[in-house]
Amino acid sequence: MISPSTTVAPTHRVLAAELPALIGREVTVQGWLHRRRTLKSVVFLVLRDRSGLAQIVLTGPEATAGVAGHPEETVLQVTGTVTAAPQAPGGAELTSPRVTALSGPAEPPPFDLYRPAVTASLPTILDHAPVALRHPVLRAPHVISAASVAGFREALDGLAFTEIHTPKVVASATESGANVFAIDWFGTRAYLAQSPQFFKQAMVGVFERVYEVGPVFRAEPHDTARHLAQYTSLDAELGFVTDHRDVMAVLREVLAGMTDAVRRRAGDACALLGAALPAVPERIPEIHFARAQELIAAHTGEDPRGEPDLAPAHERWLSEWALREHGSEFLFVTGYPMVKRPFYTHPEPGRPEYSNSFDLLFRGLELVTGGQRLHRHEDYLAALAARGESPEPYTGYLAAFRHGMPPHGGFALGLERWTARLIGADNIRRTALFPRDLHRLTP
Amino acid sequence: MISPSTTVAPTHRVLAAELPALIGREVTVQGWLHRRRTLKSVVFLVLRDRSGLAQIVLTGPEATAGVAGHPEETVLQVTGTVTAAPQAPGGAELTSPRVTALSGPAEPPPFDLYRPAVTASLPTILDHAPVALRHPVLRAPHVISAASVAGFREALDGLAFTEIHTPKVVASATESGANVFAIDWFGTRAYLAQSPQFFKQAMVGVFERVYEVGPVFRAEPHDTARHLAQYTSLDAELGFVTDHRDVMAVLREVLAGMTDAVRRRAGDACALLGAALPAVPERIPEIHFARAQELIAAHTGEDPRGEPDLAPAHERWLSEWALREHGSEFLFVTGYPMVKRPFYTHPEPGRPEYSNSFDLLFRGLELVTGGQRLHRHEDYLAALAARGESPEPYTGYLAAFRHGMPPHGGFALGLERWTARLIGADNIRRTALFPRDLHRLTP
Repeated sequence: MISPSTTVAPTHRVLAAELPALIGREVTVQGWLHRRRTLKSVVFLVLRDRSGLAQIVLTGPEATAGVAGHPEETVLQVTGTVTAAPQAPGGAELTSPRVTALSGPAEPPPFDLYRPAVTASLPTILDHAPVALRHPVLRAPHVISAASVAGFREALDGLAFTEIHTPKVVASATESGANVFAIDWFGTRAYLAQSPQFFKQAMVGVFERVYEVGPVFRAEPHDTARHLAQYTSLDAELGFVTDHRDVMAVLREVLAGMTDAVRRRAGDACALLGAALPAVPERIPEIHFARAQELIAAHTGEDPRGEPDLAPAHERWLSEWALREHGSEFLFVTGYPMVKRPFYTHPEPGRPEYSNSFDLLFRGLELVTGGQRLHRHEDYLAALAARGESPEPYTGYLAAFRHGMPPHGGFALGLERWTARLIGADNIRRTALFPRDLHRLTP
Repeated sequence: MISPSTTVAPTHRVLAAELPALIGREVTVQGWLHRRRTLKSVVFLVLRDRSGLAQIVLTGPEATAGVAGHPEETVLQVTGTVTAAPQAPGGAELTSPRVTALSGPAEPPPFDLYRPAVTASLPTILDHAPVALRHPVLRAPHVISAASVAGFREALDGLAFTEIHTPKVVASATESGANVFAIDWFGTRAYLAQSPQFFKQAMVGVFERVYEVGPVFRAEPHDTARHLAQYTSLDAELGFVTDHRDVMAVLREVLAGMTDAVRRRAGDACALLGAALPAVPERIPEIHFARAQELIAAHTGEDPRGEPDLAPAHERWLSEWALREHGSEFLFVTGYPMVKRPFYTHPEPGRPEYSNSFDLLFRGLELVTGGQRLHRHEDYLAALAARGESPEPYTGYLAAFRHGMPPHGGFALGLERWTARLIGADNIRRTALFPRDLHRLTP
């Protein structure tokens, strides 16, 4: 009457990639009908599974008639004999096959998934994401993202960080009054969290070193190739730092871990997209914001000195400079003026108009923002007063600092932006499975 | 002008747990002043860091006066000589110390963090979470949670699953019309996602096997010890299954991986809480819903036959039965009546009033829900029609099934519920860092 549960993988399914090692054996493959080519007396089926493609050869009128009712994308199970075939993927194909449909006959996808290149427009791709992402070229960025996150966690686990999960709904829009989504929380007005900033800082008091991988929400009314209204933020925060350089050193380890994980876990996806992985230098070059502006003034014919931030063109110039001078695709720009950084930023000792913060530029764009935070309660009160802000909305946030917090800092890295830079994506929406933006809430 | 970034850990800080191996050496420790005991001519400081506690001994009027201004929870740096001391934690203490404060003097926490037992009420703990969670007993559940998630991912990575990140904001409240939070999305009404169900199913068409660790939101107006309005859902979905038993087999591996990871990565936290880890049987016992009702009728004096679901008391009875009869703290109950399962549930072949679904009971409570899903487009249309629902709101969801989907299934496990069961928590709020519920939006 009671039977124990079965063990994993009770079917004897083999994957397409395993066929070359099974020549002469009868096996069963399962996957999507990627392509059907009908010749005079032969039908070639190409089956797609998570490992790749498998070719199946049907001969004779009975066999070929039997598969006529299976349009491309129909899910099939095929049992046949693995036969050496130099012209087939991996040098093996299935012959004498018995074909069974596991799904109903598939409707045609919005564009041909079997063609090597994707010619569909981005809106078409996004509108039909559940099907479009089956295309190996459109699937590959997400394999790279998954590998990247694994590398992020591996690196931080190795440095004794603890993973945390924090609220995505908050009572007040504290970090920045604008660009928040309002939500009806049991009749009370609440907001979607723009970052786990305050929570991760507080948790330094508990775990010393924490990270979180989670969604953040920005109601940015920008309709650009670089903005998403929901993205995956890779956040880390650590205590007992000397200053922001300790944070940068951890970030260097994280970038190396992410790159290494992509190489190990997503090599095929990178090859398919022609994505070149960066070398992560043992020591990533860094330049102070003030010195960066001097360099730009001396070499570009423009003089940004006095500006509190870097223009995109100047970020690009600095990236090229770092590559030329230091052979690095990464560059730390440190010391951004306090006036452009959030109130919790730690000023630079001796030059309080600058900060102990940094941006990491990667291939011409800012990829990571981070720095040392204030850690004394009175410094928070002074920083808010200097900005003319009341401490009242921050009461919960400031509680941790009343009770003893060590010098600490951290950083946030946007997963989609990282993947987009790795693969040279023209639009960040290619790196989110189901992007959310000003105009898009579906699928 | 440009200096390379420093390497990790430029300070020579050692952790409390390392002291016993460093006897005779001069070292620096950093942490929170956990406890200060002032005797006539001696002051004992106990410093807390992420590894544990370190005892520091100050003698002489000058030294003891120097630390009088450091209340408990002040962050200190102490340099001193590691000296064998049988009565100290780990058998070592710091003598001849030089003490520096890294934070301002801490205000007293809402309750004494140094006392081994926590006597504060749950509301006090939750109101003061940033400080309260520093107590080792209140911190420990979150260490167990972090380890559990690591084990979840390790197990699924080993089974060729791909990690995904899906939208937390959706256009329509599809899975269940009630209990959703409404949100203003650039002037459009949208909803917080109650689960990644539809996205993970669609992604079976792309990756075959996927998982997600992320927040889900339930606007449940229940104020109980078991409900959170945001919790962390551990979701998995896999294609090419025979039926729900393949899903159960994967879940068994996941539970074993989670338990093993907790043992390896959170052994101290378990010991502190007296948490006994379950043995995960090679084959978790299972019982069909109909048979479970017969057993209950035969043995409890109650007759639940005809009811479409199990009462909490009957779940407890079944859990006890499984422990008694099969020596297992886990029990699969399969075949729940279709009427109580979501429309995407696959019916049981031959007995279509039952389903190819399951709940996993663990220590008296449902921990996981899962099962096989429908995979044919026409089956979805029929299922919705049978429930009198229009397919229109599900158009995006149903798209994947138009284009060929394999037989598939999956499960969802609530992280907080898992941890609460492991540690025998009286309230699930002890397992969320910053719980969100009907009444609580802060801190």
